[in-house]
Amino acid sequence: MATELEELAGRLRRFGAEREWEKFHTPKNLAMALAGEAGELLAEFQWLTPGESQRPDPETLGRIRGELADVLNYLVQLADALEIDLMEAAYDKIDVSERRYASDIYRGSARKAPPLSP
Amino acid sequence: MATELEELAGRLRRFGAEREWEKFHTPKNLAMALAGEAGELLAEFQWLTPGESQRPDPETLGRIRGELADVLNYLVQLADALEIDLMEAAYDKIDVSERRYASDIYRGSARKAPPLSP
Amino acid sequence: MATELEELAGRLRRFGAEREWEKFHTPKNLAMALAGEAGELLAEFQWLTPGESQRPDPETLGRIRGELADVLNYLVQLADALEIDLMEAAYDKIDVSERRYASDIYRGSARKAPPLSP
Amino acid sequence: MATELEELAGRLRRFGAEREWEKFHTPKNLAMALAGEAGELLAEFQWLTPGESQRPDPETLGRIRGELADVLNYLVQLADALEIDLMEAAYDKIDVSERRYASDIYRGSARKAPPLSP
Repeated sequence: MATELEELAGRLRRFGAEREWEKFHTPKNLAMALAGEAGELLAEFQWLTPGESQRPDPETLGRIRGELADVLNYLVQLADALEIDLMEAAYDKIDVSERRYASDIYRGSARKAPPLSP
Repeated sequence: MATELEELAGRLRRFGAEREWEKFHTPKNLAMALAGEAGELLAEFQWLTPGESQRPDPETLGRIRGELADVLNYLVQLADALEIDLMEAAYDKIDVSERRYASDIYRGSARKAPPLSP
Repeated sequence: MATELEELAGRLRRFGAEREWEKFHTPKNLAMALAGEAGELLAEFQWLTPGESQRPDPETLGRIRGELADVLNYLVQLADALEIDLMEAAYDKIDVSERRYASDIYRGSARKAPPLSP
Repeated sequence: MATELEELAGRLRRFGAEREWEKFHTPKNLAMALAGEAGELLAEFQWLTPGESQRPDPETLGRIRGELADVLNYLVQLADALEIDLMEAAYDKIDVSERRYASDIYRGSARKAPPLSP
């Protein structure tokens, strides 16, 4: 049975195939598209204070929702193109971070310990 | 019953709570972290030809897998912080793109039609 | 007489030529490299408060200086590859922004007026 | 005598001061804005082949010129805010890269040697 993300990957595969866009969707290009959408996401937050970023006005929130969707869609297409299991990769990374950032040592401090980074 | 992404969001919430990292995890900061990981992803592909990007060597593929995981984990945390349903947002965006890029018109051409962009 | 940025462009051109790296330095790849460095720059700031970002510790400041250098070097190489005069483009953009964001209307407000954006 | 980039920094400082935008222009926010513009730059190149990226059509080239200007303007503002000498930093980085990537060893190969990266 296909999981949630596999179903999304299937839908995106059909979407691209119907338009013969596969030639554009190399991993290199998808990584660029993903990063481009991440840049649009940044633009929504860049002049907000950290506090304001927690309560965006409805119009901004709607645009943020759209950017998150774009990031997810390109992410799923990229993982699909390289046959990477996204959920497995995500949990593997958390397992590593659990060991790397022992909760009793890193409590309340992120400076030297960028959460969940490589 | 929690979906796949909701379960991942729950795991990440506990991970952050155990380290008291919630104060770092404002939407503004999470958007920066997501874009930073997207930048690391770009770095893996930047000197590859489009063709080479389709068959990265195992070491590179392992790093790409890690970057995709980082992007997903920050994406899920950001959506969670703003109470956005990622899967619903992703399908909404595809629905819009289906209507916007009619397959008989845009077949084989992406120039004027960046797939799945706002 | 060559200007400051033209001299830097010349130095970078020789650096690439000596290593026969011109084939890697297509505008597409240089744009990816630039964005990758911008992502590394973000990573330096992501967990800092806005106030903290104004006074990074010496070690962080040293890394930020290196990232800014990387961004400038790729920016200059990209402009050089496309024969774009960076300084002229920068002043043109400010001229447009001067007209677009009249100082008596936009004073103290950046929400609806992302400074210097297109 | 002020150099080219110092003059640009001065112009940008006056532009911001006239609009009382200094409060928005923390290094953290400027880094986000810079990365956001780098993302818009990516979007111009993402569906182009490497070869096409060397000869963008005039309309695309005009937009690329605008994005490069935005990146430079935020880069100069960020360096100015942190009192970093951009030109000095750029040459320092090239000096390091000259030593790191000996031209007789790295000739023609960028895989393991991302040019000008840290």
